[in-house]
Amino acid sequence: FQWLIPPSSRQRLLSEVTMTSIPSVSPSQPPCPRVGLLVTAAAVFIVCNSKDDVQYGVNLDVTSYTNGKRDTHNPPGRALPFSVWDFYSSGCSLRMLNPQAFSSTVWNFLSILQEQFGSMAGANVYLTPPGTQGFAPHYDDIEAFVVQLEGKKHWRVYNPRSLEEVLPVTSSPNFSQSEIGSPVLEVVLEAGDLLYFPRGFIHQGDCLPNSHSLHVTVSSFQRNSWGDLLAKLVPAALGVAMEEDVEYRQGLPLDYLTYMGVQNSDKDPRREKFLSRMGGLMNKLAGYAPVDAAVDEKAKEFLHDCLPPALTPEEQASSVQGSSTRWGNGRPLNVGANINSQTRVQLIRAGCARLCSDGEVIELYYTTDNSRVYHKEELKSFEIKTECADAVEFLIHAYPKFVSVRSIPCDSVAERIALAELLFEKGIIRTAEPL
Amino acid sequence: FQWLIPPSSRQRLLSEVTMTSIPSVSPSQPPCPRVGLLVTAAAVFIVCNSKDDVQYGVNLDVTSYTNGKRDTHNPPGRALPFSVWDFYSSGCSLRMLNPQAFSSTVWNFLSILQEQFGSMAGANVYLTPPGTQGFAPHYDDIEAFVVQLEGKKHWRVYNPRSLEEVLPVTSSPNFSQSEIGSPVLEVVLEAGDLLYFPRGFIHQGDCLPNSHSLHVTVSSFQRNSWGDLLAKLVPAALGVAMEEDVEYRQGLPLDYLTYMGVQNSDKDPRREKFLSRMGGLMNKLAGYAPVDAAVDEKAKEFLHDCLPPALTPEEQASSVQGSSTRWGNGRPLNVGANINSQTRVQLIRAGCARLCSDGEVIELYYTTDNSRVYHKEELKSFEIKTECADAVEFLIHAYPKFVSVRSIPCDSVAERIALAELLFEKGIIRTAEPL
Amino acid sequence: FQWLIPPSSRQRLLSEVTMTSIPSVSPSQPPCPRVGLLVTAAAVFIVCNSKDDVQYGVNLDVTSYTNGKRDTHNPPGRALPFSVWDFYSSGCSLRMLNPQAFSSTVWNFLSILQEQFGSMAGANVYLTPPGTQGFAPHYDDIEAFVVQLEGKKHWRVYNPRSLEEVLPVTSSPNFSQSEIGSPVLEVVLEAGDLLYFPRGFIHQGDCLPNSHSLHVTVSSFQRNSWGDLLAKLVPAALGVAMEEDVEYRQGLPLDYLTYMGVQNSDKDPRREKFLSRMGGLMNKLAGYAPVDAAVDEKAKEFLHDCLPPALTPEEQASSVQGSSTRWGNGRPLNVGANINSQTRVQLIRAGCARLCSDGEVIELYYTTDNSRVYHKEELKSFEIKTECADAVEFLIHAYPKFVSVRSIPCDSVAERIALAELLFEKGIIRTAEPL
Amino acid sequence: FQWLIPPSSRQRLLSEVTMTSIPSVSPSQPPCPRVGLLVTAAAVFIVCNSKDDVQYGVNLDVTSYTNGKRDTHNPPGRALPFSVWDFYSSGCSLRMLNPQAFSSTVWNFLSILQEQFGSMAGANVYLTPPGTQGFAPHYDDIEAFVVQLEGKKHWRVYNPRSLEEVLPVTSSPNFSQSEIGSPVLEVVLEAGDLLYFPRGFIHQGDCLPNSHSLHVTVSSFQRNSWGDLLAKLVPAALGVAMEEDVEYRQGLPLDYLTYMGVQNSDKDPRREKFLSRMGGLMNKLAGYAPVDAAVDEKAKEFLHDCLPPALTPEEQASSVQGSSTRWGNGRPLNVGANINSQTRVQLIRAGCARLCSDGEVIELYYTTDNSRVYHKEELKSFEIKTECADAVEFLIHAYPKFVSVRSIPCDSVAERIALAELLFEKGIIRTAEPL
Repeated sequence: FQWLIPPSSRQRLLSEVTMTSIPSVSPSQPPCPRVGLLVTAAAVFIVCNSKDDVQYGVNLDVTSYTNGKRDTHNPPGRALPFSVWDFYSSGCSLRMLNPQAFSSTVWNFLSILQEQFGSMAGANVYLTPPGTQGFAPHYDDIEAFVVQLEGKKHWRVYNPRSLEEVLPVTSSPNFSQSEIGSPVLEVVLEAGDLLYFPRGFIHQGDCLPNSHSLHVTVSSFQRNSWGDLLAKLVPAALGVAMEEDVEYRQGLPLDYLTYMGVQNSDKDPRREKFLSRMGGLMNKLAGYAPVDAAVDEKAKEFLHDCLPPALTPEEQASSVQGSSTRWGNGRPLNVGANINSQTRVQLIRAGCARLCSDGEVIELYYTTDNSRVYHKEELKSFEIKTECADAVEFLIHAYPKFVSVRSIPCDSVAERIALAELLFEKGIIRTAEPL
Repeated sequence: FQWLIPPSSRQRLLSEVTMTSIPSVSPSQPPCPRVGLLVTAAAVFIVCNSKDDVQYGVNLDVTSYTNGKRDTHNPPGRALPFSVWDFYSSGCSLRMLNPQAFSSTVWNFLSILQEQFGSMAGANVYLTPPGTQGFAPHYDDIEAFVVQLEGKKHWRVYNPRSLEEVLPVTSSPNFSQSEIGSPVLEVVLEAGDLLYFPRGFIHQGDCLPNSHSLHVTVSSFQRNSWGDLLAKLVPAALGVAMEEDVEYRQGLPLDYLTYMGVQNSDKDPRREKFLSRMGGLMNKLAGYAPVDAAVDEKAKEFLHDCLPPALTPEEQASSVQGSSTRWGNGRPLNVGANINSQTRVQLIRAGCARLCSDGEVIELYYTTDNSRVYHKEELKSFEIKTECADAVEFLIHAYPKFVSVRSIPCDSVAERIALAELLFEKGIIRTAEPL
Repeated sequence: FQWLIPPSSRQRLLSEVTMTSIPSVSPSQPPCPRVGLLVTAAAVFIVCNSKDDVQYGVNLDVTSYTNGKRDTHNPPGRALPFSVWDFYSSGCSLRMLNPQAFSSTVWNFLSILQEQFGSMAGANVYLTPPGTQGFAPHYDDIEAFVVQLEGKKHWRVYNPRSLEEVLPVTSSPNFSQSEIGSPVLEVVLEAGDLLYFPRGFIHQGDCLPNSHSLHVTVSSFQRNSWGDLLAKLVPAALGVAMEEDVEYRQGLPLDYLTYMGVQNSDKDPRREKFLSRMGGLMNKLAGYAPVDAAVDEKAKEFLHDCLPPALTPEEQASSVQGSSTRWGNGRPLNVGANINSQTRVQLIRAGCARLCSDGEVIELYYTTDNSRVYHKEELKSFEIKTECADAVEFLIHAYPKFVSVRSIPCDSVAERIALAELLFEKGIIRTAEPL
Repeated sequence: FQWLIPPSSRQRLLSEVTMTSIPSVSPSQPPCPRVGLLVTAAAVFIVCNSKDDVQYGVNLDVTSYTNGKRDTHNPPGRALPFSVWDFYSSGCSLRMLNPQAFSSTVWNFLSILQEQFGSMAGANVYLTPPGTQGFAPHYDDIEAFVVQLEGKKHWRVYNPRSLEEVLPVTSSPNFSQSEIGSPVLEVVLEAGDLLYFPRGFIHQGDCLPNSHSLHVTVSSFQRNSWGDLLAKLVPAALGVAMEEDVEYRQGLPLDYLTYMGVQNSDKDPRREKFLSRMGGLMNKLAGYAPVDAAVDEKAKEFLHDCLPPALTPEEQASSVQGSSTRWGNGRPLNVGANINSQTRVQLIRAGCARLCSDGEVIELYYTTDNSRVYHKEELKSFEIKTECADAVEFLIHAYPKFVSVRSIPCDSVAERIALAELLFEKGIIRTAEPL
């Protein structure tokens, strides 16, 4: 994470994404790990087609923006290098839609980022031929981090056009040049440079005549505003109020339809009393708001959106995924977990599991069975017995520390080991030493 | 309406249904129009089967409650007298589910009631053999008005069992006698008597050994509470706030998932700040609440639920339904509305039409094309041009007065007549004299 | 039936509808019962709108054919006389789509006709203003019987244009005058006249300048050809062959895809052997054809399509529909069927019930619970125990004779009475005397 | 293919699968390529779990058959070695459901086999612990080829129990030992041995106490009988007959429902005439049967079922998949196909593409875009212009010969090259030399 955004900027980012902020450029910083980490994404992008099942429209878009007209040229079927490079040679831009499904580097990078952001992180990779532009000016509904990987790209960024388009909830249509005014930022990115702009800032990038461009755009904070959380909280609050407070269940006045509603919007004296009571009920709502439950609803959506953790070889070796259980000499070897009281364990990632409760049962939701393909799997969870909830919380809050199984707050040794085995089997915890 | 609830009670009812109220009995009042009006319902119930398409389970339920066990005995198919009276003779109760579809008297009565209540009014008719009980003790989610039509019935009414069951939103399951305590009201109703009890009051009625019972239960105020209106208002308020106030669109804190949610409910100092901001946003919501629009959403549901107006012969004759246009002597006679500036017109019923706006177009919703069968038709509406909206409002608010077409606030004579013809053709207005 | 088609024509019709036949005119025959019976259809058509729920597009179409252009003018919603006659006055034709749902006379007539045809009979009523034409020339997929009720209509009928359009399976689009050649029949129908033309004959009718026209078109034999029955029989035959004859289950030749199929249609010597074996299997199929079962599948569709029997007052009085069971003096009277061994019973209509078997259970399908609205009800049936099948067949084949319950071939008196009660309750049989 | 079934047996197989045949054992033949080729399947099976996304129930079944009871033990979620070998150690059998998706060897083997059989070839791999049995006795709806890979397995094969179960269309339920009689074949397979048994032969295999067993079962000829082809042919024949022959469109007799059908199966003289005409129409059907079109419908289903061709490195290098087009030095290299008149081309596999026609357009269906996962992709095709159909046929029938582009029967050089480029791009043809 640090390499992407240096500490100073990071602090700024933390506040930025929670307020109306401004686009910024962060030049390449030698020694530059930024490209170092992501250049493989480029490589992957270049070669992936021959082995993987890359489909036009699903994994790869072919686009152009010529004479003010934006077009998509996806044919049906597989995207093999033979046809991909033909499009590129004729001046089309290529957008790879989910590099994380093909590149472990991108996967790893985004899986860390999503933890930092508390919001799904996505990425697209763009390859643009010299002297062309692939997309019309537009704004997006996400915070964008553009990292130049190869070549150069000329960017122009424009202010939101009105207050209503500041931090917008939906992306814009394509704009014509006459609708967007003058740029507030104009820059040519070179390999290693980072460009950031928030939701709502209109942008367009084109290639210089003598240089192609390869960049990755990392995105986050889609539908992750206070209002999005309120959309879960407010109906829940009303549900609680209806249950707990008889005032919400009392009948409406017999005659309210005769003085409320647009056809009656005038000076009827009964309106004031009605509006006052309605306002009172709205104001009381905050007192019934189940904030933690609503946050958990939002969290569950996030867990479903998440990439599964990308493990280091060391983590792999000490988790169920790298378990030494295997077939050998005509029979299975190393069967069974061999977790005991002395075994030291650690959550495999901050945020890879979350305890939620619907008021009756406690469920542990987790990301380790997610797919690298977005929403290919349902969100996974299993029930945690009430008497084990504290033990699971203990393990979650202990992160990143290793703790011994002995120290888990369960009622008996057997329960401690059973819980640890269960979490190990689901890939949620790993051991300090390979089993 | 007056006959059902005498003026004094009526006043009480107006307040009753808007607050936690108590069951009450109103004895038959000679001369008693109450039975006079509804006794035909009984007649209809008795004979309807031979002509109408009465289906078991759809229009008629066969039930019993014996030794604490409640059963339904509906066979498949049509309910002809031959089998209906066989069930009754063997001790089963009969419940007719939508008498308004078969009886014009019940239709007329409920169509008036729905206007008074501003909420859908329904009815069931019950016939119970001597010495039996057809239903287990339970409470309903509606205000109930029981009118005894024939014979006698012994009723016991019990208080809600807890604060949560006061004015409940959903009906209860069947209770056993041991769950409900002692009655707060015990009475034997005779023909003409009225028994009222609010939502949440448990009740059961059984027949004396030597008398059958025929009664109608009129219901209203289902899902018609302040909370039900808030369920429309609150998400709409959030939508407005998201559009108009950038604070609602700002990103959530990067780390909020690490200290909010049930697994984190402890003393993290960041929680207070988060909760405070959330509370602030909730409190601001009331300021964005589009109350009239939400009332209109509720009104539209009500209009869809409504029975169509039941017209008197006089009303019929002066409306499109009784238009004298007809076939005669090999050609149509009296074609065309013949509405002119002098014609005096009147809304055919208070509440039969309502102007609503979605912010872009103005629509007039109306009940005159509804069916006597619940929701058989979609809610009907048509667009009103902006320049005619005042004219339609004028006609709605003029009710019950007749006004001349000349006095309608339109720009020209032609527009006045065109609007009047349109509303006449839809059955929304009638003329003072048959055309 | 006789009145519609005089005996001589009837004989011809019997053969006609089973072969390529020709259009014919049968003049009014004084005393003319033809109009006598159906003129009420006209009356119904004229007045129905004010009481019934007639909907444009569902029950009534407004059409025109002017300058070679065919248009439909249905507005949304109910068809009240006020607007219906306005359309007519401006030169539109009116087509009433299901008069049998509104007119008992039409219902009665069609319910008899469907029995005679062994195929669903439908009807439309058409009213055309003087000097206009409502429809473009076209042909239909049904046998058509046009009965003039009022006024006059000028008809032109044209031969099918090609062998492929003789007895067609689907209706044609609208034709232009230049596509249809010269009429083979041109006639002006007057009240009481009958015009018949088979499937595939193109036709158009227009009004003389000084006379309107009211006629009914009765239709039948839609999808009722030998091929339609084969569509049920042939797959069933293959199913039986697959079960009973291993030759049909033997594997295809390993290499058949290399010499069969359009890309291989040449002189490969293996083709002949393959085609010969395939032909052999096709020819053997007839031997496995379950003809009776396929007829019953077709019959079940017909029973579902059927109108319910329209009963005479006498039939009504002696059936479950007219049962004297009723409410009186505060209790039900005449409860129970009182069928005994002496009771004489009769199927209420030929073809109102049919025994079918799927090989495992025997079901009795029946039309008496059908609705006058097409397919509003599912096809009704109930299981008949094997030992009662002969008894039901006996009753079916006894029609139209009355037989005593005593003579029904069941094992015991109790079974005879139980079966008779069951069939009586479903409306399938009636008694000789009202019970 | 030869290694699986030696030439002599192969000949037998060719006839076997087209007639009622018998199970047979073919011992391992040193030098034994049979295991040589497939042992990697075993290896794959053993290790696949750690890298691939193997799901219980989708890719792997855990089963047991103990004391006559057959159970499935699939947990939800991913099948990691950690849990897989735990099941195996406790005596469960493992069945890998689609090894072709994980093992290129199996993929290659099956893709060749499907061409030989003209029917989809599938495979399951089974691993059974010593002294256990994983499945109850049963028969399948496919021809089965069991190849022992490791260890030993004791097999018992039983005759079909009745004529109806010879070459059955559906698989059987699990049988108890008492239902299946005595085996006709009992054998212990050792590594390299092959056991064949046709559809309908009941079988069960269990492990000796001191040896585990690993085998693969290859299957084919599911729903590939003459009857399955007739199921496509016969309705198509009826469709043609209805169009071309008016006899099929003639109406059914008015009264046929009164003498046909199960309730009428007796001596009515009209039955014979009816049956005779029906038989006549059935017999004529063969004359209208569009055999080639029906074969093509069957072929299209087969093409959809097919695995994509598994290419050798040489084939890969000379096809679009191995095209040398690639990214290098900041720009794409070797763009464009460079096919010219001298280029020599070959269909990449017999049966990888097929010309079909629906009577209006000619489509080329092909398997090269299929997925190794069954039906993951829709069947792919594209339209071939009429003037190119002969050229495509020429290329298909030339297989396995290479032909020069110059020799393709098109109208011009440009068309020849365009067609070759199109087919090359779809992966349907390859070139003699890498481009």
